[in-house]
Amino acid sequence: MSNTKLNAFLPYFWLSWSDDLLTQKEFSVLQEFIQTQDWLSSDEKKELVTLIDIALPPSREQLAQWKSDIQAVVHAKPTIDSLFAIALELSKNDVSVKTAEPNFLQLENTLGILSGEAVTVFKSNTNTLTATRGTESSFDIAKMTSLLDGKQAKIIQKVKAVISRPEFKYETSTDISVYREKVLKWCQILADENLGNMAYPKKYGGGENMADYFAIMETLSYHDLSLVIKFGVQFGLWGMSVQLLGTDKHHKKYLSDIGKMKIPGCFAMTETRHGSNVKGLETTATYNHQDQTFSIQTPHPDAQKEYIGNAANHGMMATVFAKLIIDEKDYGVNAFIVPLREENGKILKGITIGDCGRKMGLNGVDNGTIHFDEVVIPKENMLDRFASVNAKGEFESKIPSDNRRFFTMLGTLVGGRIGIPRSALAAAKSGLAIAIKYGDRRRQFGPEGGSEIPILNYRMHQRRLLPPLAQSYGLHFALQYLTNRYINRNESEMQEIEALAAGMKSVTTRFTRDTLQECREACGGKAYLSENRIDALKNDTEIYTTFEGDNTVLMQLVAKNRLSDFRKNFAEMGASGMINYVFDKAKVALSERNPIAKRTTNDAHLLDPEFHLQAFKYREHHLLESAAKRLKRLIDEGLDSYDAFNVAQHQMIDVAHSFLDRIVLEQFQLAVTQTQDQKIQLILAKLCQLYALSQIEKNKGWYLEADYMEAVKTKAIRKMVNQLCWEIRPDAVPLVDAFAIPDQCLAAPIAFNK
Amino acid sequence: MSNTKLNAFLPYFWLSWSDDLLTQKEFSVLQEFIQTQDWLSSDEKKELVTLIDIALPPSREQLAQWKSDIQAVVHAKPTIDSLFAIALELSKNDVSVKTAEPNFLQLENTLGILSGEAVTVFKSNTNTLTATRGTESSFDIAKMTSLLDGKQAKIIQKVKAVISRPEFKYETSTDISVYREKVLKWCQILADENLGNMAYPKKYGGGENMADYFAIMETLSYHDLSLVIKFGVQFGLWGMSVQLLGTDKHHKKYLSDIGKMKIPGCFAMTETRHGSNVKGLETTATYNHQDQTFSIQTPHPDAQKEYIGNAANHGMMATVFAKLIIDEKDYGVNAFIVPLREENGKILKGITIGDCGRKMGLNGVDNGTIHFDEVVIPKENMLDRFASVNAKGEFESKIPSDNRRFFTMLGTLVGGRIGIPRSALAAAKSGLAIAIKYGDRRRQFGPEGGSEIPILNYRMHQRRLLPPLAQSYGLHFALQYLTNRYINRNESEMQEIEALAAGMKSVTTRFTRDTLQECREACGGKAYLSENRIDALKNDTEIYTTFEGDNTVLMQLVAKNRLSDFRKNFAEMGASGMINYVFDKAKVALSERNPIAKRTTNDAHLLDPEFHLQAFKYREHHLLESAAKRLKRLIDEGLDSYDAFNVAQHQMIDVAHSFLDRIVLEQFQLAVTQTQDQKIQLILAKLCQLYALSQIEKNKGWYLEADYMEAVKTKAIRKMVNQLCWEIRPDAVPLVDAFAIPDQCLAAPIAFNK
Repeated sequence: MSNTKLNAFLPYFWLSWSDDLLTQKEFSVLQEFIQTQDWLSSDEKKELVTLIDIALPPSREQLAQWKSDIQAVVHAKPTIDSLFAIALELSKNDVSVKTAEPNFLQLENTLGILSGEAVTVFKSNTNTLTATRGTESSFDIAKMTSLLDGKQAKIIQKVKAVISRPEFKYETSTDISVYREKVLKWCQILADENLGNMAYPKKYGGGENMADYFAIMETLSYHDLSLVIKFGVQFGLWGMSVQLLGTDKHHKKYLSDIGKMKIPGCFAMTETRHGSNVKGLETTATYNHQDQTFSIQTPHPDAQKEYIGNAANHGMMATVFAKLIIDEKDYGVNAFIVPLREENGKILKGITIGDCGRKMGLNGVDNGTIHFDEVVIPKENMLDRFASVNAKGEFESKIPSDNRRFFTMLGTLVGGRIGIPRSALAAAKSGLAIAIKYGDRRRQFGPEGGSEIPILNYRMHQRRLLPPLAQSYGLHFALQYLTNRYINRNESEMQEIEALAAGMKSVTTRFTRDTLQECREACGGKAYLSENRIDALKNDTEIYTTFEGDNTVLMQLVAKNRLSDFRKNFAEMGASGMINYVFDKAKVALSERNPIAKRTTNDAHLLDPEFHLQAFKYREHHLLESAAKRLKRLIDEGLDSYDAFNVAQHQMIDVAHSFLDRIVLEQFQLAVTQTQDQKIQLILAKLCQLYALSQIEKNKGWYLEADYMEAVKTKAIRKMVNQLCWEIRPDAVPLVDAFAIPDQCLAAPIAFNK
Repeated sequence: MSNTKLNAFLPYFWLSWSDDLLTQKEFSVLQEFIQTQDWLSSDEKKELVTLIDIALPPSREQLAQWKSDIQAVVHAKPTIDSLFAIALELSKNDVSVKTAEPNFLQLENTLGILSGEAVTVFKSNTNTLTATRGTESSFDIAKMTSLLDGKQAKIIQKVKAVISRPEFKYETSTDISVYREKVLKWCQILADENLGNMAYPKKYGGGENMADYFAIMETLSYHDLSLVIKFGVQFGLWGMSVQLLGTDKHHKKYLSDIGKMKIPGCFAMTETRHGSNVKGLETTATYNHQDQTFSIQTPHPDAQKEYIGNAANHGMMATVFAKLIIDEKDYGVNAFIVPLREENGKILKGITIGDCGRKMGLNGVDNGTIHFDEVVIPKENMLDRFASVNAKGEFESKIPSDNRRFFTMLGTLVGGRIGIPRSALAAAKSGLAIAIKYGDRRRQFGPEGGSEIPILNYRMHQRRLLPPLAQSYGLHFALQYLTNRYINRNESEMQEIEALAAGMKSVTTRFTRDTLQECREACGGKAYLSENRIDALKNDTEIYTTFEGDNTVLMQLVAKNRLSDFRKNFAEMGASGMINYVFDKAKVALSERNPIAKRTTNDAHLLDPEFHLQAFKYREHHLLESAAKRLKRLIDEGLDSYDAFNVAQHQMIDVAHSFLDRIVLEQFQLAVTQTQDQKIQLILAKLCQLYALSQIEKNKGWYLEADYMEAVKTKAIRKMVNQLCWEIRPDAVPLVDAFAIPDQCLAAPIAFNK
C-alpha cells in the first residue's frame, strides 16, 4: 500500500476475496464503507477501491502476500484475539485507524464476520484440541480379554488357533458351489477337532459342555459366518433336535455320527407359507397302522419346507416338523427323522429338493426347499420324547394340549436363540474393530494450515462408533448372564428364560444390524470394497434379525410374557399387597419425580449408576403398567382382544425393549462392580455410563413425556454423552483390541497399519 | 360332569390347561378355590380336583370337548361378554353358582384372567377389524402416475419401454466380468437410443434437455443400478466434466463421441488419501515450457486415483483432477483430459490400472485405481473454462483464489447431487412396491379360530412401511423442486442451490438406506433371496450415502451455509430490522408456544397443514439460532473455531436436517394444494399429514425440550400416526402401483400374485 495505515484493510479484503461465502453484495458493502470514512483522502479511497473491483480481482500472488503479511502480525503477537487488533497492528497503530474502531466493528457486523473465528484462520493453530487427540491405553488389554473370556478362555483360544490356520483362509470365489464345498470342508475340520459335538453326551463322543459349545459358536463368528451357520445347522439344529426331542434309541443310532459330521443333516421346520406362525405348519405325517410307518407329505407347493440349511447339497437326513395324523385326526406338530439322500448323494424317492440360490449373504450355506411326496419312514423315526404312538397305534403324550406340547418342544431348542445373538455380537465386534482402527488412522480435513486429523477425533464419528462400542460390552455381559441362566436352569424358570432369550436375540441382532451399518458408513468407500469384510459381516448377519424368530414377533412374545408376569404379580399380591404396591409407587413417584431430581444436572448425579438404573426401571415399569391398562381399556370398550393387541403393538415393542435395556444395564453394572483391576474398572465404568446415558438420550422423548426429566436435564445428558465419547476415544482402539480377534480373521486391510 | 352346576368350572379349567402362560402355581390356586367353596359337596370337590391334577392331565379329547361345549354356549348367545356369564350358562343358571359370583370374580382376579379377553378366545371372532382390512383404491392410479411424471411423462415412457425389452433381462451371473460386459452393452443401447447425450448441446448430437436427462437417470433406476451408475459416469461425470469445465475445442473434439459411447471415459477425482477433502488432492500436473505439455504424476501410492468408475476395464480417457504446477509453484486443483487406453484396450505407457475387485454392490461397474507415472499430455488437454496457461506459460484465471476456483468448478458439477438422490428415491420406490405388495398378500397369524390375515394389517407392519411410503411422495415433490431450481438457476442462487442439492442428496440417500432396510425385514426370509431384488437394491444403493459426497460431510456444509445465511440476514437487517426480528419472534413465541396450543389435541388441529409447517419452521429457526449462539459462545470462550465446530457437530447436523425437512414439507403441501383431482388430493393430503406427523413424532424429544408441545400432544400425535397408517392402508398398493414400475423391472416373484 502507498500508506501504512491502509494496511488496516488487508484482513477485510483478504477475507472477502478468499472466503467462498461472501458475494457481490458484500463487495458493495465494502465500497460504501470506504467512501464514508472521512479519515481517508480521496486518493486513498481510490486506491482501496481498486483492490475490491469485482472485474479486476487481485492476483493470486497479491492475495498470498496479504495473507503472509497478516500471519506475520499474528505470529509475532500470539495473544491477538480480534480482527480489528490485527488491522490496527498492520497499520502500525495508526491513530486515525484507532479512532475508526467503531466503524470497523460495524463493518464486521455488516459483513457477518465473527471476529474471533476469523482470527483463527490466520493463527494456523495446528495444535487444536481436535488435532492432538490420539490413542493412549489406560488399561492392560490382556487383562480385559481374560475378563471377557472368563471360564471359556481355554476353548476360545483353541478355536482361535484353529481358525487362524492357513486352510481357513477366506474363500474369495463368487461361485456358490465352490464356496459351499469350502464351508463343508471347514465344518469337517471342526468336527475332527471335536468342536462340533461339544454339547453332546460323553458316551456319544461329546464334551457335555454347553457353555463351551456357545463359546465355540461365538468365537467361530470372528471367521466366516457361513461357517458358523452351517456349523449351527449341523451340530445345533440337526444334532440337538435329535438329542433333545428324541430318546435313547435315537441318540445311540445318530449322535456320534452327527458329531463327527458323518451324517450331515437338516432342521426342516419353516415352510413357504408358515415362517413366524409355525403352529400352522401344513406338512403331514400320517400313521399307517398296517406296517407301523409314517407317510410324510407336502400337501401343496406352498407347504414345502423352505430356506432349509444343508438341504440343497449336503444333507443326508432331516428333522422334519409335521402334523401327526392318526385315523384322520390331527395331533398337532411333531418331529420326525426323514432320510433325504443316499450315501452317494442321490436324492431318495419321493423327495424333491430345490435350491434357494443366491442370497444376500451366507452363500456358503446350501439353503434349499424340500418337497415330500408320500415318503415312508419307520415308526421309530418319530422323535418321541414328548409324544409317541403306542403299539396299538394310539397317540400318547404327557402334555395334553397340542399347542403346549409344541411350544414345549420349541422351548428345548431355545439354545439357538442364545447362539445366534452371541454370533451376532461377535460380528459387530469385528465391524467395530475394523471401523475404529481405521478411524484412528484415517486422516481427513484439519485446522487451517495444520495437517489432517484422524477422523475418530470428529465428534460425529465418535457418536457413531463409541456408544455402540459401549453397548457391545454391555451386551457381552448380558449374553453371559443369559447363557448362565440357561445352563443352570430349572424347569420353573423356563418361561422366563425363553422370554429372555427371545428378547436378547432380538435386541442383539438389531444392534448388530445398526452397528455394522454405522461401521460401513464410517469407513466410507473403503468399506464398500469386499476385501475390507464389512460387506460380508453386514450381509451375512442381515438375516439374523429374521431367523430363529422374526424380531418383531419375538418382541411381541417378550411383551406378552411381561404382561402376564405383571398380572400374576398383581394377582398374587392380594388386596393388601396391592395397597402396598400403590403406596410404594407413590413413594417412588415422589422421590423420583420430585422437581429437584427432574432438574438435577451435576456431573456426579448424571454419572451415578443408581440414577441410571432407577431411570431404566422407572421406564420399564411405567411402560408395562400403561400397556396393561391400555389393553384392558380397549377390551372393556368392546374391542376384540386380537384387535386390541394389534392397536397396542407399538407399545408392546416398547415394553419389551425397556425390559431388555434394564437387564443389559444391570448386568453391565454388575460386571463393573465385580471387576478387581482398578484401571479396568475405571474404563468399564465409563463405558457403562456411556451405554446408560446414550440409551436415556435415545428415549428422551419418553422421559420428557413422562415428566421424569425436564429439558434442562435431557440437554445436559446429551452433552455428557459427547463428553464421555471424547474421554473414551483414546481407549477406543485398546477396547477393540481387547476382543482379541485374530488378525487372520479380521483380515480387512484398512484395519492394519501399512 | 356328574352334576350340571359343576360345568361352571369348565371355562376356568380349560383356560388353565390350554393357556401356555399358566403355571403349577395357578393349579394350586384352583385347588384351594374348590376346597373353600361351601356350596360344593365333598364328592363334587373330589370330582373337580381330579380334573386339575397336575400329574393326570385331562386327555386331548376331553379338552376338545370342553372347548366345544363352551363355544356352543357363546355361539348361542353372541352378546355374552363375561367369563362368569359363560360359566353360569354352562351350569344352566344354577342358583348356587349365581350366588358364588363374587367368589368366581375373585378367582379370575387371582388367576390374572382378563374376563373380556378370555371371552374372545371362545367367540372365534374371525371378523375382527384387523382381519377384514384389504386393498381398496380410493383414487385413479393412472392419474396419480401422470401427476408424478409431470412434463417428463413422454421420456419416462420411452425409457420404460427400452428397459422392459428382453435384452434388458437382469444378469444373474456372479462372474464380475460377465456382468460388467452386460452393463456396457446396455449403456451402448441407451446411447444408440440417444438417451445418454440428452443434456449435451444439439450441435454435438445432444438433446439440450437437462430435465429429461434427470428423468432418464431416475427411470433407469427401476432397472439395474450398476447400469445407472455406469450411465452416470459416462454421460454425466465424464461427459459433463468435458462440457462444463472445458471450452469449445473440447466440445467439438469429444462430446459427440462421448454421447455415442465411442469414448468410454472416467471422472478421476478421488484419491486413496483424499476422498471427502478433495481440496487436498496430491496428483500433480506439471507444465513443461519447452514442448507445452503437462506431465501427470502420482507422487506416492496413496495419491493414486481410487474407486474410479469405468477405469478397470472400459475407460479410454479420463478427466483427471490434479494440482497444476508451473515453475514449482502450485496453482491449485485443475482438470485435464488424460488418455488411458488405446482403441484396442491396451493401457498406455506410464499408466497403471488396478481393479477395485468385488464390492458390496454395483458389481456391474468396473471401478479401478489409476496411477500416473510421468504421463505427458498436450497443453490443449487442460479443461480451461476457469483457468488456463497462456502462451507465455503463465497461469491465468478470472478467479484468483485457488479454493474458490476449485469450488466453482465443483459447483458446475452439482447435477450429480441431483441425479443421485433421484436414482436413490426410485430404488426406494421399488423396495416399497415389493414389500407393500407382498405385505398385502402374505398372511401370518390371525384371530383364534379365524384364518390368517395379511401382514400389512398389523400395526407394526404399517408403521414400518407406510410412513416411508408417505415420505417417498414428499421427497419426490421436493426433488422435482430441486431439479426445477437447478434448471432455471441464475448465478446468484448457486450457493443456495448447491446447499439444497447437497442436503437433498444426503436426506434422500439416507431415506433409501432406511427404507430398504425396513423392506428387507418386512419381507422376512423371502427378501434375503436375491431373486426378490431387495438384495441388489439395498447393496447397490448402500454406497449412495458416501459417493457424490459423504452424507455427514455434506450435512455439515449445508449447516454452514445456513449459518452464513443467518448471519447475513442478521447483518443486512441493521439495527431496526433486528428489533423487528426479535419482536416477530416474541410474537411467534407467544402464539405458538402459548399454553393452549401446546396442549391442543383435537383432530382438526393435529391434521392442520398450517400447524405442521409452523412446527417444522419453529424447529428450523430455533435450531439454527441456538447453533449460531453456541458457536459464538464457544469461540468467545477462547476455543479454536475448528474445535468449536467439532464440539457442535451434532447440532450442525440437526440444523441441516430441520432445514431439509421443512423444504420437503413445503413442497409436499404445495403439491397437495395444486392438485386438481379431488380424490388424488384427498389421499395426497393424508400422506402429507402422515409425513408431517411422523417427522414430528420422530423429533418429539426436541419439541418437548423446547416446550413447544406438551406430553399430551406428542402422545396424541403418536396415536394419530397410527390412525393415518390404518386409514391409508387400503390405498397402499394403489399408491405403489402409481409409481408404474414396469413388471419386467420390479421382477421380484413375491411382488406378484401367483
